[in-house]
Amino acid sequence: MAGFQPDPSSDPNLVNVFDYERVAAERLVAGPLAYFAGGALDERTLNDNRAAFGRRRIVPRIMTDVSAVDPSVTVFGRRWPFPLWVCPTALQRMAHPDGELATARAAAARGLTMTLSTSASTDLADVAAVGGPRWYQVYLLRDQGARRAMLERAVAHGYEALVLTADLQRLGRRERDIRASFLIPEGVHLPNVAAAAGVDPAEAASVPFVERLTWDDLEWVAGFGLPVIVKGVLHPDDAALAVEHGAAAVAVSNHGGRQLDGAIASLDALPAVVDAVGGRVPVLLDGGVRRGTDALIALALGATAVGIGRPVLWGLACDGEAGVGRVLDLLSAEIEQALALAGVANVGELSPAFVA
Amino acid sequence: MAGFQPDPSSDPNLVNVFDYERVAAERLVAGPLAYFAGGALDERTLNDNRAAFGRRRIVPRIMTDVSAVDPSVTVFGRRWPFPLWVCPTALQRMAHPDGELATARAAAARGLTMTLSTSASTDLADVAAVGGPRWYQVYLLRDQGARRAMLERAVAHGYEALVLTADLQRLGRRERDIRASFLIPEGVHLPNVAAAAGVDPAEAASVPFVERLTWDDLEWVAGFGLPVIVKGVLHPDDAALAVEHGAAAVAVSNHGGRQLDGAIASLDALPAVVDAVGGRVPVLLDGGVRRGTDALIALALGATAVGIGRPVLWGLACDGEAGVGRVLDLLSAEIEQALALAGVANVGELSPAFVA
Amino acid sequence: MAGFQPDPSSDPNLVNVFDYERVAAERLVAGPLAYFAGGALDERTLNDNRAAFGRRRIVPRIMTDVSAVDPSVTVFGRRWPFPLWVCPTALQRMAHPDGELATARAAAARGLTMTLSTSASTDLADVAAVGGPRWYQVYLLRDQGARRAMLERAVAHGYEALVLTADLQRLGRRERDIRASFLIPEGVHLPNVAAAAGVDPAEAASVPFVERLTWDDLEWVAGFGLPVIVKGVLHPDDAALAVEHGAAAVAVSNHGGRQLDGAIASLDALPAVVDAVGGRVPVLLDGGVRRGTDALIALALGATAVGIGRPVLWGLACDGEAGVGRVLDLLSAEIEQALALAGVANVGELSPAFVA
Amino acid sequence: MAGFQPDPSSDPNLVNVFDYERVAAERLVAGPLAYFAGGALDERTLNDNRAAFGRRRIVPRIMTDVSAVDPSVTVFGRRWPFPLWVCPTALQRMAHPDGELATARAAAARGLTMTLSTSASTDLADVAAVGGPRWYQVYLLRDQGARRAMLERAVAHGYEALVLTADLQRLGRRERDIRASFLIPEGVHLPNVAAAAGVDPAEAASVPFVERLTWDDLEWVAGFGLPVIVKGVLHPDDAALAVEHGAAAVAVSNHGGRQLDGAIASLDALPAVVDAVGGRVPVLLDGGVRRGTDALIALALGATAVGIGRPVLWGLACDGEAGVGRVLDLLSAEIEQALALAGVANVGELSPAFVA
Repeated sequence: MAGFQPDPSSDPNLVNVFDYERVAAERLVAGPLAYFAGGALDERTLNDNRAAFGRRRIVPRIMTDVSAVDPSVTVFGRRWPFPLWVCPTALQRMAHPDGELATARAAAARGLTMTLSTSASTDLADVAAVGGPRWYQVYLLRDQGARRAMLERAVAHGYEALVLTADLQRLGRRERDIRASFLIPEGVHLPNVAAAAGVDPAEAASVPFVERLTWDDLEWVAGFGLPVIVKGVLHPDDAALAVEHGAAAVAVSNHGGRQLDGAIASLDALPAVVDAVGGRVPVLLDGGVRRGTDALIALALGATAVGIGRPVLWGLACDGEAGVGRVLDLLSAEIEQALALAGVANVGELSPAFVA
Repeated sequence: MAGFQPDPSSDPNLVNVFDYERVAAERLVAGPLAYFAGGALDERTLNDNRAAFGRRRIVPRIMTDVSAVDPSVTVFGRRWPFPLWVCPTALQRMAHPDGELATARAAAARGLTMTLSTSASTDLADVAAVGGPRWYQVYLLRDQGARRAMLERAVAHGYEALVLTADLQRLGRRERDIRASFLIPEGVHLPNVAAAAGVDPAEAASVPFVERLTWDDLEWVAGFGLPVIVKGVLHPDDAALAVEHGAAAVAVSNHGGRQLDGAIASLDALPAVVDAVGGRVPVLLDGGVRRGTDALIALALGATAVGIGRPVLWGLACDGEAGVGRVLDLLSAEIEQALALAGVANVGELSPAFVA
Repeated sequence: MAGFQPDPSSDPNLVNVFDYERVAAERLVAGPLAYFAGGALDERTLNDNRAAFGRRRIVPRIMTDVSAVDPSVTVFGRRWPFPLWVCPTALQRMAHPDGELATARAAAARGLTMTLSTSASTDLADVAAVGGPRWYQVYLLRDQGARRAMLERAVAHGYEALVLTADLQRLGRRERDIRASFLIPEGVHLPNVAAAAGVDPAEAASVPFVERLTWDDLEWVAGFGLPVIVKGVLHPDDAALAVEHGAAAVAVSNHGGRQLDGAIASLDALPAVVDAVGGRVPVLLDGGVRRGTDALIALALGATAVGIGRPVLWGLACDGEAGVGRVLDLLSAEIEQALALAGVANVGELSPAFVA
Repeated sequence: MAGFQPDPSSDPNLVNVFDYERVAAERLVAGPLAYFAGGALDERTLNDNRAAFGRRRIVPRIMTDVSAVDPSVTVFGRRWPFPLWVCPTALQRMAHPDGELATARAAAARGLTMTLSTSASTDLADVAAVGGPRWYQVYLLRDQGARRAMLERAVAHGYEALVLTADLQRLGRRERDIRASFLIPEGVHLPNVAAAAGVDPAEAASVPFVERLTWDDLEWVAGFGLPVIVKGVLHPDDAALAVEHGAAAVAVSNHGGRQLDGAIASLDALPAVVDAVGGRVPVLLDGGVRRGTDALIALALGATAVGIGRPVLWGLACDGEAGVGRVLDLLSAEIEQALALAGVANVGELSPAFVA
């Protein structure tokens, strides 16, 4: 009958991801907070990503054997201990001096895959040196040599997959940034862009991306020999096109509500994408995941795993590697418990019938 | 034309169940209040249980003879004066020194069936001595001897049915408890666990439950010869399985929103369960019932009776047995009036056509 | 281009019915205000009556000839200048010393039909003496002689129709009344009950109504030779039964949300009732009508006319007969304008196609 | 990677149209503010016009070539740089001393078509002298000679089309105006009415409009040889009738929620109108457009272009011609970006499949 008493190790002020968000908002200065927290225009999609989970209800099963729950999934042949994936987010050194290194260490310690952003503030070699499972998120640089050089570096440093972000043909209008007069702080750079483009890190922020990104580019990226995840898929036809052009997975995402405001919530887009993919490749999802029960819903609707972006930043801002670790542990524990309470011993037992 | 003037015996500060909740919240100390009032995680299911009633509308009939309304129902051969059932709730002595005894006396005085929880703070023998109609709620203890001993005691003391709670494979994460640093107060124990396990009452809270609960266990519980109600059914397939494995009734419930947050509201789950059961056994419902009109809606949608948990605790916290009695009387009177105003002289006249 | 400037006679503080409600709430003492304004239990139906109009949208027509709008309708052979009907409300002398007389005078001056309540605080003979078109609302008294005497008086005094209220088998629980310790003020009586029952007016409030009200009673009431409107119809089958038992009209109503809380909003119940009646008799509607556009929606969905209860009381409380008159004029003008702006020159041109 | 830093020319206090609205509300005096901002009655339609956009979600495409986005459309043979149209609004000199001249100059500088209102506070000849693309909005004066004279002046001054407003058979009741005791300020006149009617400008506000406006009038207006847009269409049958009677375009509109309160939101009315028109003529839309993403949604649902009324007034009130220009530039830039982020290089690629 353990359970009547709360876990004594719990900090009553940091009980869930929302607590980390609140505390992080107190600690971050205005510009970086605006950059991390904000979405595009009226933040309708930002908010709808969360609300979409609230529109679903779970229909759990009972009297099943959940004495041992296995929340693991397998992606590209690697076993993930939880169906949880650290999404790429930019400029993590704005959240904590250790930046992406802290995130990498926390994820690696738990066997979770971390995705390093092209816009990371830490060199991909340094993150690789942490040794955890790692993916690299790709923005294609306009200069062909630089573009190639960046991917070659990622391959050379053992990144296991490339995440091609497809929804940033140009930057969304994020009004919080404008109101906060956000500027990248001094001393925070984009070393991966700088290394690829051969420019001084302080100048990397002005290195241009390609202006034209089409399915040919996916094939070009896939030519580097790593699985490529196309991130930013919302339309089922694009999911099918991605698979046809060689995507190893698709990630249903609206860039955390930071690009096209009014875009459909990730969760709302998921079922049609799952249908279109038809099991040919894994379907990941990010956008609004803050609870283990959110993961349960997405998995039941066909996602292979869910990604988190901002929650990692909140953990980072609160307490560096330890904070990221606690956020990852919180969500992992919530996922495991959600499976058990839904009467599910393995992720594979989930199906759309669990969601009303 | 009586009715123009309000009932002079009414306390204008305790007019309905919500008033009892408000006053109880003022009287209870923080930890027990958190434990009684809270739900899991974001309390979505806790709130949705109530909201689900608000999403239905009643279509009453007129010009029927309701000069004499009979709100009684028959469950397992016993006539219940109202389609109302006192659900099991733990640790009632945290609400009032008289605890479960007060509840038992108030229920017995009205001929209402009370369910004593395995986690009760009063010995089942003492509650049995009150003499009212009584059911016993079962959590299976991990130790086989203790498990058997507990049920044998319930049978021996005249409990008429066993309520097997199926949705607590592990305890839901109730963040109010964590924030309030809830601990079971000194002097409040679990005597029924202690008696079955042969441990000191002060140690009973650490006696473990079974980790694996499956339909075999239902058959084992049914072997004690009493009708078994499977409580925690939300999925229609589980309702059918329960009946096939010998359940004498099913109780649609999500444990008051305290287990899997995001689970479907009890009322929303009811119609499919009623369909799946097909009249073979009674279907009870708990979760969010606070008004006689709530009961009317649930009964129209096929429930045999509705259960209340927290309202009893609020009455108990306000005024012990008298408070519980007034809450039961309030709800009973509201049910009787709701039937009359819906043009229904007997519960059996209700049907889904009364709900839009 | 008149219209750029607001009507100079408008009082900017009493622009619409809601203003009258606000000012009336300031002027009335607590008990009568609670009685007039309140609904049953949680006031869900009270609020839903209004919300139901907000859930509909009007699809107006353009380029039709609305240079002359005729908002009149014909009910029982009498031309009503507007499809607007003064519903019965009790105890109007609690709102203003002139009570029902003021209402009768305001309605009569505009050719609008007023319904006097059995629970009126003014004798039906005095209201009849005003000379306007008038209906009498019927609660059947338990005593057979008194019951008959009341209707004979109504017939004798030229009331043109009897409104049989079918949804008050017993009084709904109105918690505002209890909280306000509402009592009928001294000096306010029920003279029509007193006269029928032959009791002192001060004792009339305790004269009992029938406990059993069925379709036989409708036939008995119809035997007095006047058209009978059955008021309180929400279920389409009851609408059909009313017509079959001789009703000359049905009034879709939930008693202003004062009886069965949770009952379907009047407007939501209307379409099925209209279908069931199939044009055999007029269908009236009350509940939540506060705007001319509300009337337009109800008429488009098949109502012959709409009734108002509380708005009349707010006008009465603000300024007696003059206040009632201004409320009636406001609504009449709003109805006429709504028809014109919807492109409709006659009420008969409306159809469900005007409502989305 | 431009885009990390906000545009340095952005004023963090005037980031979007809502900011202009807020600042304008601070600068305008009460009467004109009420007149400009208010809607009819309860402002349900005013608010619903905005809310309707919030009920739609965009399903963007990815990996398309949006390196060059062409947001232009062609209306009546003229290329519009953006699918954006300046709607007629009255009395712009109440917003800024330069009034309609400032609007005309800002629109002309951007190649956008401006519609001058019959109720403008600037002579149509002066607006024509600005030289930009211009339409003239028509209220038919009651006097036949004046009616003809007004249109002859518009034709003579090079207005390219006539916008026949069909939803102002009489003025809607705008309660904000009444509460603010709105009067047209001294010195603000209706010169176009005055010129046509041959009256002193100070008396023009009392020149009456026709009381009867039917499809014959459309044919008469079309006889002046310019394309005629029928503005105020909400019902699909009226859209078809407009085309049959010679309309060169229809404008889906509810007059900004200023006429029939409760009327369907423009966006909600759009799809059925588009169906009814069947591509025979362009379909314009106004009502609630405040974002480039709103335009995207309307275009995807079949609108050829969207109109804005109040946003222009807010820009005007903030800073005359420069303010109008910035509002137009903001919306133009938002439209261009919305297209790019939706993966659309040309407006013609949009379809209802982009809206969920």
